[in-house]
Amino acid sequence: MSYNAPLKDMLFVINELADLSAVHALPGCEDATPETVEAVLEENAKFTGEVIAPLNFAGDKEPSYWKDGQVFTTTGFKEAFKSYGDAGWQGVQHPVEFGGQGLPKLVAAPCIEMLNSANLSFALCPLLTDGAIEALMTAGTDAQKSTYLQNLITGKWTGTMNLTEPQAGSDLAAVRTRAVPQDDGTYKIFGTKIFITYGEHDMAENIVHLVLARTPEAPAGVKGISLFIVPKFLVNADGTLGARNDAHCVSIEHKLGIKASPTAVLQFGDHGGAIGTLVGEENRGLEYMFIMMNAARFAVGMQGVAVAERAYQKAVAYAKDRVQSRDLAGSAGPVTIIHHPDVRRMLMSMRSQVEAARALAYVAAAASDVAHHHPDAEVRKSNEAVYEYLVPIVKGWSTEMSLDVTSTGVQVHGGMGFIEETGAAQLYRDAKILTIYEGTTAIQANDLVGRKTVRDGGATAKAILAQVQQTVAELVAIKAGAGTHAADLQVIAQQLEAGAVALEQVVDYVAGNMKSDIKAVFAGSVPYLKMAGIVLGGWQMARAALVSAQQLQSGTGDASFYQAKISTARFFAEHFLSQAASYRTAIVDGSVGVLALSEDQF
Amino acid sequence: MSYNAPLKDMLFVINELADLSAVHALPGCEDATPETVEAVLEENAKFTGEVIAPLNFAGDKEPSYWKDGQVFTTTGFKEAFKSYGDAGWQGVQHPVEFGGQGLPKLVAAPCIEMLNSANLSFALCPLLTDGAIEALMTAGTDAQKSTYLQNLITGKWTGTMNLTEPQAGSDLAAVRTRAVPQDDGTYKIFGTKIFITYGEHDMAENIVHLVLARTPEAPAGVKGISLFIVPKFLVNADGTLGARNDAHCVSIEHKLGIKASPTAVLQFGDHGGAIGTLVGEENRGLEYMFIMMNAARFAVGMQGVAVAERAYQKAVAYAKDRVQSRDLAGSAGPVTIIHHPDVRRMLMSMRSQVEAARALAYVAAAASDVAHHHPDAEVRKSNEAVYEYLVPIVKGWSTEMSLDVTSTGVQVHGGMGFIEETGAAQLYRDAKILTIYEGTTAIQANDLVGRKTVRDGGATAKAILAQVQQTVAELVAIKAGAGTHAADLQVIAQQLEAGAVALEQVVDYVAGNMKSDIKAVFAGSVPYLKMAGIVLGGWQMARAALVSAQQLQSGTGDASFYQAKISTARFFAEHFLSQAASYRTAIVDGSVGVLALSEDQF
Repeated sequence: MSYNAPLKDMLFVINELADLSAVHALPGCEDATPETVEAVLEENAKFTGEVIAPLNFAGDKEPSYWKDGQVFTTTGFKEAFKSYGDAGWQGVQHPVEFGGQGLPKLVAAPCIEMLNSANLSFALCPLLTDGAIEALMTAGTDAQKSTYLQNLITGKWTGTMNLTEPQAGSDLAAVRTRAVPQDDGTYKIFGTKIFITYGEHDMAENIVHLVLARTPEAPAGVKGISLFIVPKFLVNADGTLGARNDAHCVSIEHKLGIKASPTAVLQFGDHGGAIGTLVGEENRGLEYMFIMMNAARFAVGMQGVAVAERAYQKAVAYAKDRVQSRDLAGSAGPVTIIHHPDVRRMLMSMRSQVEAARALAYVAAAASDVAHHHPDAEVRKSNEAVYEYLVPIVKGWSTEMSLDVTSTGVQVHGGMGFIEETGAAQLYRDAKILTIYEGTTAIQANDLVGRKTVRDGGATAKAILAQVQQTVAELVAIKAGAGTHAADLQVIAQQLEAGAVALEQVVDYVAGNMKSDIKAVFAGSVPYLKMAGIVLGGWQMARAALVSAQQLQSGTGDASFYQAKISTARFFAEHFLSQAASYRTAIVDGSVGVLALSEDQF
Repeated sequence: MSYNAPLKDMLFVINELADLSAVHALPGCEDATPETVEAVLEENAKFTGEVIAPLNFAGDKEPSYWKDGQVFTTTGFKEAFKSYGDAGWQGVQHPVEFGGQGLPKLVAAPCIEMLNSANLSFALCPLLTDGAIEALMTAGTDAQKSTYLQNLITGKWTGTMNLTEPQAGSDLAAVRTRAVPQDDGTYKIFGTKIFITYGEHDMAENIVHLVLARTPEAPAGVKGISLFIVPKFLVNADGTLGARNDAHCVSIEHKLGIKASPTAVLQFGDHGGAIGTLVGEENRGLEYMFIMMNAARFAVGMQGVAVAERAYQKAVAYAKDRVQSRDLAGSAGPVTIIHHPDVRRMLMSMRSQVEAARALAYVAAAASDVAHHHPDAEVRKSNEAVYEYLVPIVKGWSTEMSLDVTSTGVQVHGGMGFIEETGAAQLYRDAKILTIYEGTTAIQANDLVGRKTVRDGGATAKAILAQVQQTVAELVAIKAGAGTHAADLQVIAQQLEAGAVALEQVVDYVAGNMKSDIKAVFAGSVPYLKMAGIVLGGWQMARAALVSAQQLQSGTGDASFYQAKISTARFFAEHFLSQAASYRTAIVDGSVGVLALSEDQF
């Protein structure tokens, strides 16, 4: 169950596709020199590989458990989390003034990936804490910031997001938790929250719950929701811990996967009221929560990449080790199964999807950095639009991809894959939550259709597609001189162009039919999201192939790495990009079949 | 967790697509009148729904366990199995002379489906027993038949298949278990077998192990394997049980799913030698085992349909019950989630795949019946070829489909899907074995490529495709008069024709390139299998739409059922058949990318 961070591919993507040099040149990102970034990633790889990864299988065998209101995490988690905080990893992307490292998201993204490859269950605690930090950074008062941020960023305390209630899953308009204002300016919180990740645990001194609730006079629906800080232990004026707050874990869930990560039911106010303080202004809670959610959605997308990478590594190791049957081309005795074409196909399918999704996510992270730091407002705005367009795709597509890759990972192991001790099945079970939490794939697709495509009439999508066509032109231009790889580049260019054309038709359809036939458009929303992931992930693979061909022409660098990159891009083009036309049909023509049946015909 | 057998769809497929009237007309199938078949299925639906289905979740929570060499099954399994045998269900497709009902495979197939929808873990015991019965029917001596068949067919005893050994997974050439001839004509068996389903349990008085082993002078490889009967308890001449044989269960596996079904490691001969008797001739064991395997492969394909059907029913029930968010078209309050377009899309995806796979499997079963019973040798031969072509597709495609459908089933449940108590996750875990055991999907694809396509130069595939084109022509002919469904039928015809053309190109490629580039052909073997499943499953849906349109024109029958069938066929056409061109690319052009990397580039 070892994990070796794919540093070479990560650095290739960071430098060649996500353009670290441009990010490094941004005001506030000066510390992110190529040397520093490489050193940070190497250290992170070492830490996650040596300290966190070995706890992954143990967490599945010996999950967190609840007893008398307390949650006890897997043996070793507490110590590992302390090391994580002490080494400064919680602070990678957070401000130096509160104890962070102040590095760009482009550096945080691979760190998030490594931690999640090492241990998805463990990584959820830092992931949620990151979200709490982001929300407080944006909307907290100075007092709230000074009380909470340093402790969250150094890993002394952790954070949670409290949205869901039994009657309100994805529908936050239905939130019922009450916040009653008190004379001292605080609020008393009453209600039940479910599915609260790390809502209770023994890994930190305090837990900072960020809770959505309604004040007495609040309007109905999502416009009447406010955000509150409700710490597990109240914090005294001097920063020391005070009384236990009235926020209690009444149970944790028995889940398919990520078993080491406690999923809590939290009861607020059963003993007089949990004391909370308002974050920002009343009734703007959803807006602040979206800050957390956007950060968390990107991170969950990285979880998809991460668990798929781990499954890929495990499958490769098994395929190189397991001896079974003869080589088709003829051999005296049995060979390792990596010699068998279908095992190759499975491994290439896993590899190419992981590389494509990683590249797309890191490129999105770089766009976020430019959007935050670039001196030119127009550049910030256009990069913000690109990032916002990509977030639901990174979240939705990378996680759907991870279901396929972890399933294939089990398949590569044959019968052994079905035996829990092998470990492949755990990754398959763990991954299944990723398409559900932080907004299901359908919720991501709603966002992609509504806010990200229809709102600007498809302008951002088309701006991105113009860049895709530019890559097609560059591939066509270079292929004549690409020697043995000319045919590969030609195939990639053809499939990418066809994919871009099909995606543009879909964007026109989505933007053009929302008003006239909203149900038909949303009937194709998830296929649109998946198709966008494939085309834009394929675009990144094509860009990678282009860079690799250029490097091979110039004779610099690791020829084997570049050749493999081109071949992997070709595989992706013929096995995934080729699906674009089918998606176009399903989206543009296929809504009739989706919506034809009446309820009683099911 | 209730299960209601989809009798209406089953009977539609049996009568309209698989042509029960033709099967009923075969010599030896006279008992299978439409009335009898309907009555048998209704009784089976009742039995599986009331007796077997309620044990499904219990089996997951309280799996079979091993203690001191004995395996204790889930509470209630023993009694349920006795009821199953007493009611005659084990004997549905077996000869009347040995206590069976002698019904055709076309009737057995829906019974297998129902039992597996009710409880995959439970159904494995009858499934393996069926295989043992088939092998003994074909190759057993009269004495062996009279000793074992009646007891197996009435459910008094059960059967197992012992192929796999630790060093020999899919590669039976590597089997090492030894069979040493004794003076009395028996053999002493020594060796270890793994992954033996129901290799030990407490549900029957005796277990009849069919074991592959090598005699001392046997040639190496698969041509030196013989098949032996090694009962758990030796059987006296008068049919009573004698001494405990030296075949012992040393452990059972800790698995991802089908936890109630014990997967045994069996140790033969550790205490002097297990006594076995030869089945048929020495060194022909693999041939006999293939009889079992072919029956079992078809049955595992039915398991795919079955678990997918159960997941579909569960998802529909949840979608009609769970209230969440407003209707997109505008509504005062929140609605049940079946109103949301993406939930519809998921349900239609599940429904259409299940219906397509069911229809293809039943049609294959009918071909098997004709192949066994038709008076004309040529008709027998051509139907045998069709059945043989379809078996790896039914096994491989239906089970791969079940992974997708059970995954979508969890997704429909949202966060609740990830909670084990909901039950959706169990189906997801249970299904995962189906693409692995009785030959992985790659093994099925090897069979489809090698024995079923290349051997006859693609002749059988093309004969089937000629029938597909006939359906296209009939769709085109009827659509003008199909009223409101004309557009649906046109879409179905277009997608089916495109799929058939693409599949024919693939068949030509496979048959034409095997000699020149065997690795390239096998690099596309699994995509070929999946594509064949989609095109031929889509063909059955198209045939169903055609029949439905005819019924609607004539004004007979249940209009709502026929309308839903046409819409479901259209959904399948645009969302699945439309993938055929992409598969063609992946198979015909995509092998370069599959095979490009050297081992050290992984």
